[in-house]
Amino acid sequence: MSLTLVVGSKNLSSWSLRGWLAMQLTGAEFEEILIPLDQPDTAKRIREHSPSGKVPLLECEDGAIWDSLAIAEYLAERFPEAHMWPRGETARALARSVCAEMHSGFTALRTHMPMNLQRHRALDEVPTEVEADIARIVEIWTLCRQGFGQDGPFLFGHASIADAFYAPIATRFRSYQVELPALAKAYVDTIYQWSLFQPWLNAGLAERT
Amino acid sequence: MSLTLVVGSKNLSSWSLRGWLAMQLTGAEFEEILIPLDQPDTAKRIREHSPSGKVPLLECEDGAIWDSLAIAEYLAERFPEAHMWPRGETARALARSVCAEMHSGFTALRTHMPMNLQRHRALDEVPTEVEADIARIVEIWTLCRQGFGQDGPFLFGHASIADAFYAPIATRFRSYQVELPALAKAYVDTIYQWSLFQPWLNAGLAERT
Repeated sequence: MSLTLVVGSKNLSSWSLRGWLAMQLTGAEFEEILIPLDQPDTAKRIREHSPSGKVPLLECEDGAIWDSLAIAEYLAERFPEAHMWPRGETARALARSVCAEMHSGFTALRTHMPMNLQRHRALDEVPTEVEADIARIVEIWTLCRQGFGQDGPFLFGHASIADAFYAPIATRFRSYQVELPALAKAYVDTIYQWSLFQPWLNAGLAERT
Repeated sequence: MSLTLVVGSKNLSSWSLRGWLAMQLTGAEFEEILIPLDQPDTAKRIREHSPSGKVPLLECEDGAIWDSLAIAEYLAERFPEAHMWPRGETARALARSVCAEMHSGFTALRTHMPMNLQRHRALDEVPTEVEADIARIVEIWTLCRQGFGQDGPFLFGHASIADAFYAPIATRFRSYQVELPALAKAYVDTIYQWSLFQPWLNAGLAERT
């Protein structure tokens, strides 16, 4: 059994962070290949691994699996004992919904507030579409935490794929100093205190830019 | 057991088509609520069902599930006997990868060639980014068909969620008269001859625009 995860720069690559946290949730050993982004040979190096030209990508005996959501579902099926999706059909249905919404949406926020762990400065002006994205994310976090978050500080109590998917949003909210209601603020703290996230965070903060 | 799928106009709503085909793959009975798009009350009517303001949405005893990929994964887990994902870890890993790539990508193609079943006319000019998206899709179809398509005409032989996800692309290729290599052309024909797709197609062609 061999698992190799190809990721981009830890300071910048939000999709890589999602796949990497999903991998961490399995508890399994894995190799990591880090390809620095925004370098002259970045595209070439990614293409050596990734048919879609994107990271993250998981290499294993079942072939190459790309795109963070496919990686998460693959791992959830392969490591059922890790309960990477929340237990209970209702919780799992909501978790899948909010991850898929993240996966295909929030374009304005992603464009105007790219993940940058080293940044600590608000935008000069927050575009209206970004405000709408932020409001919707707060709505999602509230729905998950209030409905299913009794057993712990994560979106569904215990850490799950949903947290892997929203962790990069939490970092954006802190990096861009977004004002948040108490529940959302507490969730951002939860992500920063998450033992699985901290090694990534420290590596990202140490990267030279 | 009750399943209600909320969809948009059949002529136009490519995401709805994906969720609807996934629903069809289960073989289960379901209710359908159709909300015509681009009407003065469209947003209001969608909001009555959908917290994300988008269709498709599945209503069932496990709550509301939105976003076509979450619906597909939910149904695949609920109806394991339907084998909505291809059998075999390697095939399933690739199927999930190409669906996730569809789910988050191909923005240029989606913008410049929106699904419109009633259209039969090429674009005056095909932007370079759209050409790149088309080339990548042909690459994906070739990879799936050549690697796993021995037992039938679909991407993984038998019809699967991967076909639900790429069916709206097949209709665009026909509607916008895109020139394709033989394998891709044959796959477009497969979709148009697919018994599960034909009721949607006929309803879409009959819609008044």
